[in-house]
Amino acid sequence: MLKDWVKSSKPDDEEMTRRLQKVRTELTDRQLAIKENKLPVLVIFDGWGAAGKGSVLGRVIKNLDPRFYKTETLSKPSEDELRRPFLYRYFVRIPEAGKFSFFDGSWMDEITRNRLTEQTTEEEYHAQLTSIKRFERQLSDNGYLVVKFFFHITQAEQKKRLRELADEKSTSWRVGKWDRWQNKHYDRCVDVYDAYLEATNQFIAPWYFIDAKNRKWAELQVMELLVKNIDIALQNTGRAAAILQNTFPLKRMPRIREIDLHKSISDAQYEKQLEKLQHQLAELHNRIYQAKIPVIIAYEGWDAAGKGGNIKRLTAALDPRGFEVHPIASPEPREKNRHYLWRFWNRLPKDGHIAIFDRTWYGRVMVERLEGFCSENDWQRAYNEINEFEKELHDWGAVVIKFWVQIDKDTQLARFTDRQNTPEKQWKITDEDWRNREKWDQYEVAVDEMIQKTSTVFAPWHILESNDKHYARIKALKIVIEELEKRLG
Amino acid sequence: MLKDWVKSSKPDDEEMTRRLQKVRTELTDRQLAIKENKLPVLVIFDGWGAAGKGSVLGRVIKNLDPRFYKTETLSKPSEDELRRPFLYRYFVRIPEAGKFSFFDGSWMDEITRNRLTEQTTEEEYHAQLTSIKRFERQLSDNGYLVVKFFFHITQAEQKKRLRELADEKSTSWRVGKWDRWQNKHYDRCVDVYDAYLEATNQFIAPWYFIDAKNRKWAELQVMELLVKNIDIALQNTGRAAAILQNTFPLKRMPRIREIDLHKSISDAQYEKQLEKLQHQLAELHNRIYQAKIPVIIAYEGWDAAGKGGNIKRLTAALDPRGFEVHPIASPEPREKNRHYLWRFWNRLPKDGHIAIFDRTWYGRVMVERLEGFCSENDWQRAYNEINEFEKELHDWGAVVIKFWVQIDKDTQLARFTDRQNTPEKQWKITDEDWRNREKWDQYEVAVDEMIQKTSTVFAPWHILESNDKHYARIKALKIVIEELEKRLG
Repeated sequence: MLKDWVKSSKPDDEEMTRRLQKVRTELTDRQLAIKENKLPVLVIFDGWGAAGKGSVLGRVIKNLDPRFYKTETLSKPSEDELRRPFLYRYFVRIPEAGKFSFFDGSWMDEITRNRLTEQTTEEEYHAQLTSIKRFERQLSDNGYLVVKFFFHITQAEQKKRLRELADEKSTSWRVGKWDRWQNKHYDRCVDVYDAYLEATNQFIAPWYFIDAKNRKWAELQVMELLVKNIDIALQNTGRAAAILQNTFPLKRMPRIREIDLHKSISDAQYEKQLEKLQHQLAELHNRIYQAKIPVIIAYEGWDAAGKGGNIKRLTAALDPRGFEVHPIASPEPREKNRHYLWRFWNRLPKDGHIAIFDRTWYGRVMVERLEGFCSENDWQRAYNEINEFEKELHDWGAVVIKFWVQIDKDTQLARFTDRQNTPEKQWKITDEDWRNREKWDQYEVAVDEMIQKTSTVFAPWHILESNDKHYARIKALKIVIEELEKRLG
Repeated sequence: MLKDWVKSSKPDDEEMTRRLQKVRTELTDRQLAIKENKLPVLVIFDGWGAAGKGSVLGRVIKNLDPRFYKTETLSKPSEDELRRPFLYRYFVRIPEAGKFSFFDGSWMDEITRNRLTEQTTEEEYHAQLTSIKRFERQLSDNGYLVVKFFFHITQAEQKKRLRELADEKSTSWRVGKWDRWQNKHYDRCVDVYDAYLEATNQFIAPWYFIDAKNRKWAELQVMELLVKNIDIALQNTGRAAAILQNTFPLKRMPRIREIDLHKSISDAQYEKQLEKLQHQLAELHNRIYQAKIPVIIAYEGWDAAGKGGNIKRLTAALDPRGFEVHPIASPEPREKNRHYLWRFWNRLPKDGHIAIFDRTWYGRVMVERLEGFCSENDWQRAYNEINEFEKELHDWGAVVIKFWVQIDKDTQLARFTDRQNTPEKQWKITDEDWRNREKWDQYEVAVDEMIQKTSTVFAPWHILESNDKHYARIKALKIVIEELEKRLG
């Protein structure tokens, strides 16, 4: 599409000035509408080196209140970012509801550069395209406006600009190796960019080419397209998105009500095995660390099912420098104002590290579903979105282990009562726990649907029968050990 | 995606019966909501031969009032359809607002079959994919709900069913050559289908795979997905779609106000050239007919600019069996209830024929825009939609010639007055003409935008300076002749 794109004709200077004045006022107005409608707006500036992205970006934000936007310069990933999933550095930078994020450079840059320099194979490249398409679609489905600009200049124009920048002392630092490489291999870049632009030209986030030869004209194009897209998005706030069918391979899972909870272990056996398994795990943790394998362990289960104690037996075996436990409570405002997976992307471990989640992203399809904290469309979409999220983790190389800690209703009652009657345990029981208990049957429906729809072969659920907490702890340890050994080969 | 799709588990018979009862009532209810919200619903049944598409389709429509749906069986294109653009037979069958169309088989069948039997090249196949993606997106953007099902059975299951059908006298006619071919080359089909499904799995019209081994279960999946998609679409009626950037190569065009209207021709020269050119055109018409080249000539222009007389001088040269003139008035209800391009798709000529449109699809960005007959989002999207339409015609092999017949405001006034004062011309002038004249300046803005945005290199606008009608007629004839000669080579 870049190849046969013909620019539309540039208006004369007088018309440009008039239209710029108008559109600047419009953009200033729109920032309030965006705030009121809680619309998050992600604006991406991609394009050729020296095409003037930064300078136009600078002009655009002049019309905005600094409290309403952030700018991000995305050049090469940092050391720390390279130890996270490919999408991490982009996901953690998405805007808050009601605000703008402007990206100077984006994932396009990283993906196409790696392709051009053959640091990724054709296959890896296509996997990244798939990730990107899912990412952009998820943003759109979750109410984000994504506007993507590609700043275009000819090879000759780029050459001229690079020469001018290099000749001037104050700007010569701005000409990088990559810009020169790009200019030298302009035609090959066109091929790769064209294919990328075509592949990612999704209707939920289409590309807009900016004729960037003239700075003022580039600014006008960007501003007018931005306002137009904002107006459309404002008309569509609250729209429902299609529920995509799961196309990831799933494992068959039992209904939780059918799970045999009589399984137990003797105290003597428990002590013996616990020690042995913890020892094993400690050793594996070392190997995982050295092999730079990231591990994500997710705990969900009924209140008082014994998640806390279970996690404790795991972490007791781990080197404290190599793991982190994330207790997940209600989202904070800055979390609530973003894609619901944002707070989990932010908590992903570095490679070689273990992250343990005490409650997880599955809140979306349990408490948020049942309490009406999100719309029906939101939680129905979430099964697929979560599978996509975990696929991303899996493709990154992570071991993903998900535990559902199961008890029956009577056991819960006994434990609640015990907590109530034991002064040092009273902090563990709240009115909310009792309220949730009243919704046991509804939760059961939601949990079953969750387990059925998200037990992918790359991140299946494991059921921990936890009427006997000891049994559940030993089982959890065994599963973690098994999965880590499998991964280490 | 088909390759690694794992079916979800089938509920037991009792649960299926319960859910079927529920969803049948729901679908019956939804047909009224669809009618009230004027939602057009296109449901596509694709999949393997003998997968049971027809039988499930039969069950689905049992829940609907026959006035609210149409079914279409799309096997191979007819002789007549083969003489139209590839998309023609699908576009003319799209549903009316407030109604269902059910397609037993779709464009997938045609495209993948031609690919499997190597009747299309890789390049042709990709062009068809692009067409299809645009088509489905245009439907969605124009308020259509498109639901696509793929009925899946294994090779063994298909083989078994084909054998059973063949063995039974009453059903043996239902087993076609193609079904057998498919079963024999099942793996190759999977490859081609998988690539097609992946490429066309757009978020505006995603694919849903139906596990078709069990008839009742297949029906339940279809019904539940259908109701779910309808509910989402009902929430989204009136949503605005993204304005895509034109990526077709455009020609630079002048503003109409800047056009020199002093061009003229003497009466003697006019008569002489008219005869010569008409003679030439008559001959070319013959050659066009034999070469099976379709020709589409579109006229737009100011009221009283002389379109009628201009068209007459063209048709006078043509064989009446080989052309048709389509005067375009306000759309009839059945036209208004469909995609605005539908009535033009219906009027496309067969190959070798000439269709002349007296006013055209450009009404969308002129009268409909100015009179508020469509939303701003509608007409802003239309430039790209129209370019896509004309690209389709061009790719089909058509010569597309578009005339803008230009006069100045004084000339219009003189002609209006003349019409008013000449009894036999009075039918040509209405109050509406006078009202439109008052909006001259607004029209000028709209016409300029139209000409700038839709003068693609494959279907550019030609300006006919028509203060001197004779001059305009000669120019039109010359352009038509030139374009036909160019095409004939």
